[in-house]
Amino acid sequence: MKEELIKEIISDIKARSERAGLPVPVGVSNRHTHFTREHFKRLFGPECEPTLYRNIVQPGFYACHETVSIQTEKNAFKNVRMIGPYRTYTQIEISYGDAKVLGLNPPIRDSSKIENSPGIKIVGPKGEITVEKGVILSKRHIHFSPSDAKKFKIEDQQVVRVLCSPGSDRETIYESVLCRVSDKFALEFHLDIEEANAAGLKNGDKVYII
Amino acid sequence: MKEELIKEIISDIKARSERAGLPVPVGVSNRHTHFTREHFKRLFGPECEPTLYRNIVQPGFYACHETVSIQTEKNAFKNVRMIGPYRTYTQIEISYGDAKVLGLNPPIRDSSKIENSPGIKIVGPKGEITVEKGVILSKRHIHFSPSDAKKFKIEDQQVVRVLCSPGSDRETIYESVLCRVSDKFALEFHLDIEEANAAGLKNGDKVYII
Repeated sequence: MKEELIKEIISDIKARSERAGLPVPVGVSNRHTHFTREHFKRLFGPECEPTLYRNIVQPGFYACHETVSIQTEKNAFKNVRMIGPYRTYTQIEISYGDAKVLGLNPPIRDSSKIENSPGIKIVGPKGEITVEKGVILSKRHIHFSPSDAKKFKIEDQQVVRVLCSPGSDRETIYESVLCRVSDKFALEFHLDIEEANAAGLKNGDKVYII
Repeated sequence: MKEELIKEIISDIKARSERAGLPVPVGVSNRHTHFTREHFKRLFGPECEPTLYRNIVQPGFYACHETVSIQTEKNAFKNVRMIGPYRTYTQIEISYGDAKVLGLNPPIRDSSKIENSPGIKIVGPKGEITVEKGVILSKRHIHFSPSDAKKFKIEDQQVVRVLCSPGSDRETIYESVLCRVSDKFALEFHLDIEEANAAGLKNGDKVYII
């Protein structure tokens, strides 16, 4: 029994130590939107479809040419880019700084968890809508493919700490980072632009799970 | 000899553990300027003097009513507030996000270390100047009065790690934080608005040296 426990502890230490040597690339999210087909058509017209601006690291997802304005009584942001393809929910992801500019107090959430989040007015070239909910601050997280999860010895929903920019003036450890494993994912640490700037990170930089 | 070493280690562990229980209040810096008397007069006119908008936590320092625009070829920020009183150097402290908007690449520096930093055009109500240097990203740091330094068992120039928002979705450890001790200082952890937002902090929140 004691021997088993010791083996388990040693195996855990070994896994952590190996993992800490494996780089995870960084993906920085600027403010962006996801739209349902219906909301997209009301904003861009019934004939329009989302068009590829550039592919992003996550397979099948892409930044679109299509952008909107998001507006509150207090303020607005223009040129907020859509990430395609369509989703079953409309979601607007902003930073805490953006939220203050807009006078909103959105919750920190995993993508798709939009219950009890603030709504917002969205203006497109062919129409405008006001959604009742959908504005969130995205909770920082790491995407893993199943094979990367195996390599990192990480389970879906595991919570880890992430070391950013070691040795620099902005060296930071982000605690409480959720790991998500799916065969739709590619290895990437997602955080918003303020979190990236605070930790001295830009797209494609490497971080470490410690 | 061995006993001495053990005593030293135990004393260090005890100091760290006591310190970790003592809260440090947070002071969040938005973009701001410091001016020499000469630069101030050129921007606001020879008759003008900086006027108190509100006192800040550090004794003798105050946000002024006087604001300027800072401008590059790429972009500008209006209403950038001066922190008084005058200094022997003109310094413009911005965030990394601000720097990207302005198209500048300023270094991360302790206050007053402005050698080889970018310059900028500054526009006031009565005149404009272009400084050759002075734009920095402020390196996060903690101010201690000598009595607080004693209480925390901290020496001037000591580098520490700071735990922010424990238990929250934005729990963060900022590494490599410089401690500065002076009888002109009051206890406060200074960081910029992006660093504060990334770690879920606002003015007056408490952080811990761990």
